Amino acid sequence: MENFKSSLSNFLLRRHVVSEDHLFLRACWREDVERTPVWLMRQAGRYMQAYQEVRAQHSFLEMCRNPRLAAQVTLQPVERLGVDAAILFSDILVLVEAMGMRLEFQEGFGPRLHKPVRSMDGVDRLRVPEAEKDLAYVMEAIKLTREKLRGRVPLIGFSGAPFTLASYVIEGQSSRIFRFTKEMMFSQPEAFNALMEKITSAVIDYLNAQVRAGAQALQIFDSWVGCLAPDDYERYVLPHMQRIFASLDARGEVPVIHFANQAATFLEKVRVAGGDVIGVDWRIPLDEAWRRVGYEVGIQGNLDPLALFAPLEEIERRVRDILDKAGSRPGHIFNLGHGVHKDTPEEKVVALVKMVKKLSAR
Amino acid sequence: MENFKSSLSNFLLRRHVVSEDHLFLRACWREDVERTPVWLMRQAGRYMQAYQEVRAQHSFLEMCRNPRLAAQVTLQPVERLGVDAAILFSDILVLVEAMGMRLEFQEGFGPRLHKPVRSMDGVDRLRVPEAEKDLAYVMEAIKLTREKLRGRVPLIGFSGAPFTLASYVIEGQSSRIFRFTKEMMFSQPEAFNALMEKITSAVIDYLNAQVRAGAQALQIFDSWVGCLAPDDYERYVLPHMQRIFASLDARGEVPVIHFANQAATFLEKVRVAGGDVIGVDWRIPLDEAWRRVGYEVGIQGNLDPLALFAPLEEIERRVRDILDKAGSRPGHIFNLGHGVHKDTPEEKVVALVKMVKKLSAR
Repeated sequence: MENFKSSLSNFLLRRHVVSEDHLFLRACWREDVERTPVWLMRQAGRYMQAYQEVRAQHSFLEMCRNPRLAAQVTLQPVERLGVDAAILFSDILVLVEAMGMRLEFQEGFGPRLHKPVRSMDGVDRLRVPEAEKDLAYVMEAIKLTREKLRGRVPLIGFSGAPFTLASYVIEGQSSRIFRFTKEMMFSQPEAFNALMEKITSAVIDYLNAQVRAGAQALQIFDSWVGCLAPDDYERYVLPHMQRIFASLDARGEVPVIHFANQAATFLEKVRVAGGDVIGVDWRIPLDEAWRRVGYEVGIQGNLDPLALFAPLEEIERRVRDILDKAGSRPGHIFNLGHGVHKDTPEEKVVALVKMVKKLSAR
Repeated sequence: MENFKSSLSNFLLRRHVVSEDHLFLRACWREDVERTPVWLMRQAGRYMQAYQEVRAQHSFLEMCRNPRLAAQVTLQPVERLGVDAAILFSDILVLVEAMGMRLEFQEGFGPRLHKPVRSMDGVDRLRVPEAEKDLAYVMEAIKLTREKLRGRVPLIGFSGAPFTLASYVIEGQSSRIFRFTKEMMFSQPEAFNALMEKITSAVIDYLNAQVRAGAQALQIFDSWVGCLAPDDYERYVLPHMQRIFASLDARGEVPVIHFANQAATFLEKVRVAGGDVIGVDWRIPLDEAWRRVGYEVGIQGNLDPLALFAPLEEIERRVRDILDKAGSRPGHIFNLGHGVHKDTPEEKVVALVKMVKKLSAR
């Protein structure tokens, strides 16, 4: 009865009825499903032979910028794994590039952004791009992918969250301790806030444009926010996240997954920030996470990606455990707690998706 | 009354009465103190001018291996900051070196261990050192430091925890995702367990030798254990930690601080593993952490080290907040949630220690 009422109110909240009856979208809205839908962060990636073949011919950024290649690679896991959603092949940093920074990917090093921003002057030099024009290749890739998908599964668009993007803008590269990010946050709070404002505006426009181009769900990746103390999240990050969720044109219509990595100590605040589904990493048991964010949102997760190095029976034990923790309540989307690692044996990934489908069948 | 009874039972549990009446040691045993003791992880380090002067003349490993230099540097923060405890200047990886691995520190890269161990063969090649003989320079440094300290403050000895040491042994360097560590854990659990057994034996002997040499307290650093899911901690790590705490000759006499970094989602298990004081990082509010581990242990922490980049009034606000969260219950030791960052302004560190002393005075 509880579930029925909650499903009904969800249904009424949605301004338009979702035309296709996709399992993944229904689970995002916590409607009853015949089994748990599954997709994997970084499901289009280097662990996959078909991907490697494309990658051997093109640089990573070329693949992001070429709609035909991006669409091709986006479809690979749909065909190879049979996942219940596609996620656009792209990188969160293309948005930062469109804001005016020079972006490179160096083999074995990862992303590098030239002239990192560490003062108000730097913030002033960044611009809020018009996604439809400045990131036209992303919109084109979305349209092309939708065509090629022919309704088989929904397409997820995505963006990095402001804090995660700001950390790259400030550090100029990946980081573990976020020394410059936190220095700017703590010693120049006005400049840090101005940067977050600007990135937030860019994210909102980017996500709205993706939906107009055809994205049927959205995920916001706050990959590095777990480096913050709960109070600092509340003070420096949460208001910007709230602005995003309040500013999405398709709110209540296109589900938004809010993935906050390593944020177990302030999950309640992540929930307050917003999202129809909260994505969690493997450091917190799924049942505890769901209880803490509340059952008015869905939950996505949360197998340790490196558990895919285990033998199949051990993977199965873990899948069962996560499904048990999710229970029979609708609204669970199976995923890893972070992206698929590039060294993962491809057949293990194939087996995982099969397992989730089989073991979760009602 | 509660506090009195608990202090009394602590007192009776200790086989010998601590001869010196050090504030820090009393707080470890949750006895009443006139103010909160404070020391800082990596308090002897590159942020300090006096340290840099020694470092300019010697490599990091030379400083670890030379008892005179190690003692000199260990004393610097006692004199410069007025902290309530000294911690031996050394590195957790010297133990692994004594187990038979070749250790190097490369500028701007960090530690590198040659021929990382990734199979049972590799485990078999490691030996359990006799700390008194194979790490005689550490014992010598402890003796010399005790002499030079002349009872001013107690000296803390330390070791890396088995999981953290194993991660270096397996990865061969610092890591963020622990790809090889987890692969070995999940796909060769017997070899992983054998490695943990061997390291655990080495840690026990090492810590016991440090106490015989004169260490008056111990800290066990589990710096990277936060990459694990709670169930994996329980299965692969906890039994080894329990063996350490059960095997310390001076248990109940020399307090042991168990610092488990980023372990907020399984703090209760960390408590079960053992320790007289649980050290926590800044991602969890101190009051919540203490409530969860229970008031039968002390708590150490937990200012974000990068908060030292903030203006003094903001640092003070944070110090007050942590002291408020600790409340009037005895057993809080003020510390950072991780080591002092090398770029931290030295005067901020000096100011922090002064602040804690002043603001916590009963």
